[in-house]
Amino acid sequence: MARTYRDTVTTPAAARSGRPGARPFVSLLSDFGSRDPSAGIMRAVIVGICRDASLVDISHEVDRFAIRDGALVLWSAVPYLPVGVHVAVVDPGVGTERLGIVVETARGDFLVGPDNGLLLPAAGRLGGIMRAHALENPLYQLAPRSTTFHGRDVFAPAAAHLAARVPPEAFGSPLDPRQLVVLDWPEADIRPGWLGAQAIYVDGFGNVKLAALADDLTEAFPGARHGERFLAGIDSVAGRRTLTLEWAEAFGRVHPGVAVLITDSYGRLTLAVNRGSAAAAFGIRPDTPVALTRAGPPPRR
Amino acid sequence: MARTYRDTVTTPAAARSGRPGARPFVSLLSDFGSRDPSAGIMRAVIVGICRDASLVDISHEVDRFAIRDGALVLWSAVPYLPVGVHVAVVDPGVGTERLGIVVETARGDFLVGPDNGLLLPAAGRLGGIMRAHALENPLYQLAPRSTTFHGRDVFAPAAAHLAARVPPEAFGSPLDPRQLVVLDWPEADIRPGWLGAQAIYVDGFGNVKLAALADDLTEAFPGARHGERFLAGIDSVAGRRTLTLEWAEAFGRVHPGVAVLITDSYGRLTLAVNRGSAAAAFGIRPDTPVALTRAGPPPRR
Amino acid sequence: MARTYRDTVTTPAAARSGRPGARPFVSLLSDFGSRDPSAGIMRAVIVGICRDASLVDISHEVDRFAIRDGALVLWSAVPYLPVGVHVAVVDPGVGTERLGIVVETARGDFLVGPDNGLLLPAAGRLGGIMRAHALENPLYQLAPRSTTFHGRDVFAPAAAHLAARVPPEAFGSPLDPRQLVVLDWPEADIRPGWLGAQAIYVDGFGNVKLAALADDLTEAFPGARHGERFLAGIDSVAGRRTLTLEWAEAFGRVHPGVAVLITDSYGRLTLAVNRGSAAAAFGIRPDTPVALTRAGPPPRR
Repeated sequence: MARTYRDTVTTPAAARSGRPGARPFVSLLSDFGSRDPSAGIMRAVIVGICRDASLVDISHEVDRFAIRDGALVLWSAVPYLPVGVHVAVVDPGVGTERLGIVVETARGDFLVGPDNGLLLPAAGRLGGIMRAHALENPLYQLAPRSTTFHGRDVFAPAAAHLAARVPPEAFGSPLDPRQLVVLDWPEADIRPGWLGAQAIYVDGFGNVKLAALADDLTEAFPGARHGERFLAGIDSVAGRRTLTLEWAEAFGRVHPGVAVLITDSYGRLTLAVNRGSAAAAFGIRPDTPVALTRAGPPPRR
Repeated sequence: MARTYRDTVTTPAAARSGRPGARPFVSLLSDFGSRDPSAGIMRAVIVGICRDASLVDISHEVDRFAIRDGALVLWSAVPYLPVGVHVAVVDPGVGTERLGIVVETARGDFLVGPDNGLLLPAAGRLGGIMRAHALENPLYQLAPRSTTFHGRDVFAPAAAHLAARVPPEAFGSPLDPRQLVVLDWPEADIRPGWLGAQAIYVDGFGNVKLAALADDLTEAFPGARHGERFLAGIDSVAGRRTLTLEWAEAFGRVHPGVAVLITDSYGRLTLAVNRGSAAAAFGIRPDTPVALTRAGPPPRR
Repeated sequence: MARTYRDTVTTPAAARSGRPGARPFVSLLSDFGSRDPSAGIMRAVIVGICRDASLVDISHEVDRFAIRDGALVLWSAVPYLPVGVHVAVVDPGVGTERLGIVVETARGDFLVGPDNGLLLPAAGRLGGIMRAHALENPLYQLAPRSTTFHGRDVFAPAAAHLAARVPPEAFGSPLDPRQLVVLDWPEADIRPGWLGAQAIYVDGFGNVKLAALADDLTEAFPGARHGERFLAGIDSVAGRRTLTLEWAEAFGRVHPGVAVLITDSYGRLTLAVNRGSAAAAFGIRPDTPVALTRAGPPPRR
């Protein structure tokens, strides 16, 4: 299982707001897009069941069927969400035998969605799974339940009933957390003086998120610090190329149009171009392999 | 007038929540897109007039000027919305003589928007129209009223005042529901052993929604059941082709990449490709004619 | 400084709703897009700090890094927003020395964002700036504060704390409003019988907003009125062309596909094509120069 599953619980101040009497918090994530009514229907179903819920959409523009993208976006967001119910639906297996699940985290959240690995990195980031239950009880589903839109018929109702304080065991059988479906989640390959980390997500600015955190960089390159230069070997569809770039504190530390290695705001190593798109400039796509080495000798202490 | 106008009222549990004291529910739909401020301004105008309103966006990405798409999206959504006010704006005639209207449905909802056919399929799905009024009273409009953005100046204020319990007759003259503008709404052509139904909407996954409901299929092909195979003749811009496909319960009942005929979660016949785009695979666009026949003899009972 | 900074305060009825006890109003604008979690995280951070806030998204689809677009969208929206806190983030300089600021307007709003000119046109439209403070106090920021996502770590928390009635002086040093960064904001060139005004924004319908208000037209062409015809000289990338078009009250006053000069719903001169895209038809992009002259003699009085 991946490093991210073992993350310590991170709870910025914004999330510590489960004060008594506060409106229950529900976040939503899906790959439904914003043109079709699906995401709006999920919101409406939740409000219809739990009128006091405070709803926040994380994203409904996850790439279609891209479970790993959805898992990464949710992993990124959850430390900044108030303790509450988080429903996520990227669900190519809808209507098959895959389970619907609710997972309770150590931080006190409930994660709701399909048992396809989508929820687990986020659960790890919230301290790990305390218990999990299948979503089986028709009392907490819309009837008739469709075979193609469990976001509406199963997951949104479950989220709303959880927000209204129905306990997870009311939804169905307990599940062994170790039996839940785990994603193929790429990890950094950390060696002395070498860090391999494929691209795992290209954000809307064209920044390339790598399968490595800043801690992995300092593990591979002891004494590494901002301002040091690295070689990035990129095996893109257009061939292999090597860039020299600075590990900088912020985009703006290099000139516009210049490539830079930064730590993004989630602690993740990211290839970027100041005011530009690294993905477009270097032909990088998800799963493109990237390898980092030092551009010079380690800095003297 | 189309079948959908005569639909019986469908009210999933989620919608039966007009409990006294609950925050009034307002949904929004438009073709304004999410880059321009128009949709956000509508939301803000509503909140400014009725601070307690519980707002849910159904979609603001309806194709520009596509009244029929907007009508279909609203038709799909309304059974899952709490009883409330639903404002919809796809309005190429803004600033001309077309009326603004509020329509009260048998279920107890108010539909607000232009009198161009956009609201009527949804009204039919909510039990039909009890009464309709023109939106004329300047007391419930922003001043000065523009000629180009009635979403902001007429429809959002009307929705907010309705949510705040201003009765529909306060907005203007009563209208005869039979005089409201009716859309050209394609219907299935049902014959013994043959079902003609053009494509009417391509969703974000590339699923092709047809102008036929599952009931139309069983009417054309008595005894039809899931697992049976059909021939679909498609007259696309790229020429005519015939597919053999299974009428399946869910996308996942066929292998990835395989075409399938499903009933979508709104009861509508849909051409799909498991984990792919049927529209792209077969060059289907809205209004492409599709005809279904049986691929073999009817199943024996 | 541009005309818009000196606008008189416009406060439609919808905005006059700061009644005691009402939920505090917070609007959001950014160039973060809807696929990445950034906008959702900002919403969640605000709700986590001020659970009662009434949130409205104006747009998160401002073109990437397009400060002027963001400023124009915010300028368009603010008169229609309830008095409240408006947080805007188009911030290519994040992590550099640029300040984060809160600006209090004469209408009673707080504008929150980077000191790069984004907020000032909107502040002008709300009566001008009463006072401004730097966002420095770590007590009102998330810790650790990233160098790449101040929307999450600085601006959203500031907006939430302002909504919760923390006064602006608590955030940091007072700033001289005259020292804030001012955008290069294009203005109309008004001469007797001639009006020069570049394109400044192309909306989602393809309407071309010009750097001129309707008042500029009547100043350049005394006695101008709807129905009169003008020549529009357009210097697009495809060469220079001249259109003859009517200054009309609404899109629908000309036939579909016909070009028309209208006053948009914000008082701005706009080149449009009824039910079509003027930008596509005439190859107009932001900054394309447009010059208007009369197509005939002034109308007789």
